[in-house]
Amino acid sequence: MRKLLSSLLICATGLALTPAPADVPLRGFFPQSVQAERDLEARFKTMPDPGRMREAMRRLSARPHHVGSPYDKDNAEWILGQFKSYGWDAHIENFDVLFPTPVERVVELVSPTTYKASLQETALPGDPTSNQQAEQLPSYNAYSIDGDVTGPLVFVNYGVPADYEVLEQHGVSVKGAIVIAKYGGSWRGIKPKVAAEHGAIGCLIYSDPRDDGYAGGDVFPAGPMRPAQGVQRGSVEDMPVYPGDPLTPGVGATKNAKRLSIAQARTITKIPVLPISYGDAQPLLTALGGPIAPAAWRGGLPITYRLGSGPAKVHLRVKSDWSLKTLYDVIAKLPGTTEADQWIVRGNHHDAWVNGAEDPISGLVAELEEARALGTLYQQGWHPKRTIIYAAWDGEEPGLLGSTEWAETHADELKAHAVAYLNSDGNGRGYLEIEGSHSLEKFVNGVALDVEDPESGASSWKRVQASRILNGTPESQREARDREDLRIGALGSGSDYSSFLDHLGIASLNLGYGGEDDGGIYHSIYDDFYWFTHFSDTSFVYGRALAQAAGISVLRLANADLLPFAFTNLGETVQGYVKDLQSLRDRRSEQIVERNRQIEEGLFKFTSDPRDPVTAPQRQLPAPQLNFAPLLNALDSLNHAAARYDRAYNRAVTEGRVTNAKSVNERLIQAERALTSTEGLKNRPWYVHMLYAPGFYTGYGVKTIPGVREAIEQGQWQDADREIARAAAALEREATLISGIVAALPGA
Amino acid sequence: MRKLLSSLLICATGLALTPAPADVPLRGFFPQSVQAERDLEARFKTMPDPGRMREAMRRLSARPHHVGSPYDKDNAEWILGQFKSYGWDAHIENFDVLFPTPVERVVELVSPTTYKASLQETALPGDPTSNQQAEQLPSYNAYSIDGDVTGPLVFVNYGVPADYEVLEQHGVSVKGAIVIAKYGGSWRGIKPKVAAEHGAIGCLIYSDPRDDGYAGGDVFPAGPMRPAQGVQRGSVEDMPVYPGDPLTPGVGATKNAKRLSIAQARTITKIPVLPISYGDAQPLLTALGGPIAPAAWRGGLPITYRLGSGPAKVHLRVKSDWSLKTLYDVIAKLPGTTEADQWIVRGNHHDAWVNGAEDPISGLVAELEEARALGTLYQQGWHPKRTIIYAAWDGEEPGLLGSTEWAETHADELKAHAVAYLNSDGNGRGYLEIEGSHSLEKFVNGVALDVEDPESGASSWKRVQASRILNGTPESQREARDREDLRIGALGSGSDYSSFLDHLGIASLNLGYGGEDDGGIYHSIYDDFYWFTHFSDTSFVYGRALAQAAGISVLRLANADLLPFAFTNLGETVQGYVKDLQSLRDRRSEQIVERNRQIEEGLFKFTSDPRDPVTAPQRQLPAPQLNFAPLLNALDSLNHAAARYDRAYNRAVTEGRVTNAKSVNERLIQAERALTSTEGLKNRPWYVHMLYAPGFYTGYGVKTIPGVREAIEQGQWQDADREIARAAAALEREATLISGIVAALPGA
Repeated sequence: MRKLLSSLLICATGLALTPAPADVPLRGFFPQSVQAERDLEARFKTMPDPGRMREAMRRLSARPHHVGSPYDKDNAEWILGQFKSYGWDAHIENFDVLFPTPVERVVELVSPTTYKASLQETALPGDPTSNQQAEQLPSYNAYSIDGDVTGPLVFVNYGVPADYEVLEQHGVSVKGAIVIAKYGGSWRGIKPKVAAEHGAIGCLIYSDPRDDGYAGGDVFPAGPMRPAQGVQRGSVEDMPVYPGDPLTPGVGATKNAKRLSIAQARTITKIPVLPISYGDAQPLLTALGGPIAPAAWRGGLPITYRLGSGPAKVHLRVKSDWSLKTLYDVIAKLPGTTEADQWIVRGNHHDAWVNGAEDPISGLVAELEEARALGTLYQQGWHPKRTIIYAAWDGEEPGLLGSTEWAETHADELKAHAVAYLNSDGNGRGYLEIEGSHSLEKFVNGVALDVEDPESGASSWKRVQASRILNGTPESQREARDREDLRIGALGSGSDYSSFLDHLGIASLNLGYGGEDDGGIYHSIYDDFYWFTHFSDTSFVYGRALAQAAGISVLRLANADLLPFAFTNLGETVQGYVKDLQSLRDRRSEQIVERNRQIEEGLFKFTSDPRDPVTAPQRQLPAPQLNFAPLLNALDSLNHAAARYDRAYNRAVTEGRVTNAKSVNERLIQAERALTSTEGLKNRPWYVHMLYAPGFYTGYGVKTIPGVREAIEQGQWQDADREIARAAAALEREATLISGIVAALPGA
Repeated sequence: MRKLLSSLLICATGLALTPAPADVPLRGFFPQSVQAERDLEARFKTMPDPGRMREAMRRLSARPHHVGSPYDKDNAEWILGQFKSYGWDAHIENFDVLFPTPVERVVELVSPTTYKASLQETALPGDPTSNQQAEQLPSYNAYSIDGDVTGPLVFVNYGVPADYEVLEQHGVSVKGAIVIAKYGGSWRGIKPKVAAEHGAIGCLIYSDPRDDGYAGGDVFPAGPMRPAQGVQRGSVEDMPVYPGDPLTPGVGATKNAKRLSIAQARTITKIPVLPISYGDAQPLLTALGGPIAPAAWRGGLPITYRLGSGPAKVHLRVKSDWSLKTLYDVIAKLPGTTEADQWIVRGNHHDAWVNGAEDPISGLVAELEEARALGTLYQQGWHPKRTIIYAAWDGEEPGLLGSTEWAETHADELKAHAVAYLNSDGNGRGYLEIEGSHSLEKFVNGVALDVEDPESGASSWKRVQASRILNGTPESQREARDREDLRIGALGSGSDYSSFLDHLGIASLNLGYGGEDDGGIYHSIYDDFYWFTHFSDTSFVYGRALAQAAGISVLRLANADLLPFAFTNLGETVQGYVKDLQSLRDRRSEQIVERNRQIEEGLFKFTSDPRDPVTAPQRQLPAPQLNFAPLLNALDSLNHAAARYDRAYNRAVTEGRVTNAKSVNERLIQAERALTSTEGLKNRPWYVHMLYAPGFYTGYGVKTIPGVREAIEQGQWQDADREIARAAAALEREATLISGIVAALPGA
């Protein structure tokens, strides 16, 4: 059946997944270089081996391997050995970071009835690693402050700012209360942060079965979903302020680094927080009184979800061991030849919350197979133009610690030498998901076209396109059909690209397959070899596809004659962002006007139900008009320069030579750097990129042109015009840099 | 608090709920008649008594009173006595109708495990009437065919046609299967009808706790929601074909009426069907295998919802007593004076599925208080111009039996004399919900402005407007602010107005308050006095408001100098329907083109997940263009005539006399009749109204301009142009009639 399907698809689309002929252009390569690159890639593609990935996963996920655990170090040493055996120049780089581990954890309902939460994930028969209790990190949220609090319980939905507006309308306050929030709807660290801002004294976070439990399928081990006792661990460090070691913002956490005191660290929570299972959450939620939760807030438990606060009173106690722990980053190098001081950096973390088969080992085993293949090619005589650096990061889970400390330590070298950073993390079945710098959008589309999707037999590109046409809005449907390149998402946070892109301005991409399998084992003891090999990419064919996609990206970047950046995609994307911002302002303005009018008309009073009275919201000041002219002017400059670069690039490729290619490439590397601003974002100077940042109130979720967008979203109108000017200045710098490159190319 | 709120509202809006002064116009009244009418209404408004409503509800809902039960007859006789005691000329009119009552009911899971459904609602402590088991009609769906079937179980969501497309995409067939559908999403009778069309052999319908169980609040008796054993009874007669007695379509079911055989009756289901509780549904749903149900299909049970068919096999047995039962319609009359042969008809049913406090007694007790008040006014010397007929219908629950048989029996008189029919059914707290003929839209808006909302102190009109501004789409928000009249909905089916409007072309209105209280006792033994007086309009102030709204409507219609129809609202509304139809065709056309293109592009194959393969849908023929010109021309005629009528009406009112008022009113009565067509709708000739009908595949839900709309929706393109011409002819008749009336008014 699948075979037939595949051949049908190839007929239907004319896609032949044999290598493209040498006369089809390849972004970044002169005509005379294409054939050699295609041949090299064809050899490379055959090398990643699903069987080896499976065995590597078995080995790496055999025991819990969180930061500071014996098996974390053991894995690092094994990975080091692997790189060396592949012919790479590899070493381990250590850092000493603040990483709290739990000492005391108590959650109990103290009235109207009593219930003591078990806070314990149980070993499951048939699952051979879930019984390694002695080595498992108990369920907790890293970087929760220590605390011992008792207070009424309030259900806050996902705990994002909009949820507190609903609570306020229903007259429910969280002042002095312990909130209970569902996982999801935002990055988890946002939940205690927003709760504390509203006066809460403690925070519980639970996994609702509607979101990743039985609603989506059978629970583990019968199926992939979260069982009643399963808990999502995770960091609640305030990463939107800065990631990495809380004690060494902006500098590497080396042995003798100058450290803040814990009290000085801005990224530790203000209130204690613990994650719990839905098994433990159900008695607490059942005890809640108060108004019935809106339909959209309700989860999958067989109860009436209420807001509180009612009779339910909860005691929460959290205490951690706040000692420093050692990180083991594995760094491996293949030296470049003619452009050795231009670096292609590729990474995936190796630490996990527990056994971490899916997160992160499923991505790491692909990276290791890439490394083995590249090492083999190297030994067979291929030497890359540029230096290739492969990293297996430690400490990603607590707060991107390993990558951040390494990037901060090597900031100056990286700013001078790094061409691009390629990241992966977990991997699964389905669709090639790509996010990253839009100057690489055209490049990575070319890669996706050349990697076969294992299930459909079509290209990974074609499958994503098909899905967007079938499932997209009319606009994204039209775009998927008509636009030359599939649009890639912007990067927020949540994995190790953050320091490279957000702090150093290095063009970055994040790659991974997914979208076909549901699961509910994220950050639990059940994310293990048994789960992955029963419910995810069981044959590791998508692991191979990831190794092919990332490996070909590395090969092309390392071998390219002219680095394959394209700025028309960047300009067009930023133009979309600016339009977004303009309509965001207008929409906010209309909302404020409409809301104020509704208040004046007394509508909230007319419709208040005496059995569930609603309070009218506060009047807000009308939104001022903003001066978008600087951004629009800068955009014109950027688009103009980008178009000129396209023409110059095409001329250069047609001619087949650029005398000063090395220096042109060195200037191309600086194109992403030009989008940064030394003073960084308001209140979080660690973040210097003017186009991309994780949202202050979303965490993982990206905010594009963040200075302007967050000023509008948060109603800080007085900042908006200044932020527009800062973003515009970055775009003008970019335009100037690109114009300079154009001048240096032939025919200028 | 409430007192303060009310006075605030009055300040904010300038609304004084004392009667409007005599110089404010009153639709239908000459200036010299306004003061008397206002005075009369002011006296009327003080009369409906919440205390009496409470006691009447206690009496009428004291025992089960379904069709054929002793207490149904007893209630009818008590109601008759009430009318007589109020001074009305009242009698009981009997009909003999086919009404099946259950003899055998079996639902059992026979594999892979076994479970026998209890099919039994249990008596609850504290609820004094739930223990009247001997008199309760067991839970069942009336007009299910007898049957004894065993087959695999398939979950079909709400069981509407679109759900079967999803099943087909997942490769799940219901051929030879027993389907289980959730209540909701359509009228219940649609579920077995569509299931049978797809080859199912049996149908179960259950109440999911997400829809009216614990998700929405505490379950009865602690709260208003449906407990685990609660079952929704209800008719599954194919009412979109014709309502009323299945054996006497189109004629009254009098003693000697010519009757069809049961086998000839088109409105009995094709497959056996039974309703069950979620307590009984859970073991069946848990046993299902097959693909996981889409997220939107999942309910509130703590299980993984799957589509089947899997190992679950079910045995269903239904057998009824198919004897005829006697209906007791109570008909009461206050004779008119100068225009006695113009009738104002008002009704609410008295039969229930069990005790029926909410459905229908909460509406009936308001109607009785209106009748008492009108009788008192009559005895005090007020005599209406027109004859007023109040009805308490029997047999509404099984299929609008009492009203249909009465309307069919008196069809000729009603067509000649009936000005309007005013209906109510259950009543609750909240917002005045109005549906009906758009020629009465302006009139009923005037009534809503003059009835105080008991909670806010504002008018019932104002409160609805406030809610639409707060909760509506931008378009309905704008309309609620700017349009002179609040838009009223069109009538589908689901209560006793159907025969008057759909079969006889009598302008109709349906009135009731609701929207603030959730409940889950509908058609169960728990819809009783205890429930209503604990969880709904406990002080009966909304019962009083309904009596005021309906009573004032009756008074104004009965006393008006010129009947208060207004046709500009009708024309504007129909214009909206025609625009809808045009964009519906275009949207369907685009969907077909897009879907065919997706099939050609192979998108379904590219995206099919081998673990949950999806089948591409079938290609469809493109939609032809339709000739809307006849409808648009007819609309021009109607709008033109309506505008001229408005001017003529205003002149007549300004002059304060119309010499031929009686004959003008007789012609106004015919305006709704003009919108009917003698041959009726395709395949259901009982329905003759060309603007309004219940949807063939929605049941209660209305289809406006149904001939055209259903031809487009069902892709029966060959019918569409003919249906457009038929609808256009009705509008032309209406325009001609109105033009004739204009000519008969002064100044023509």
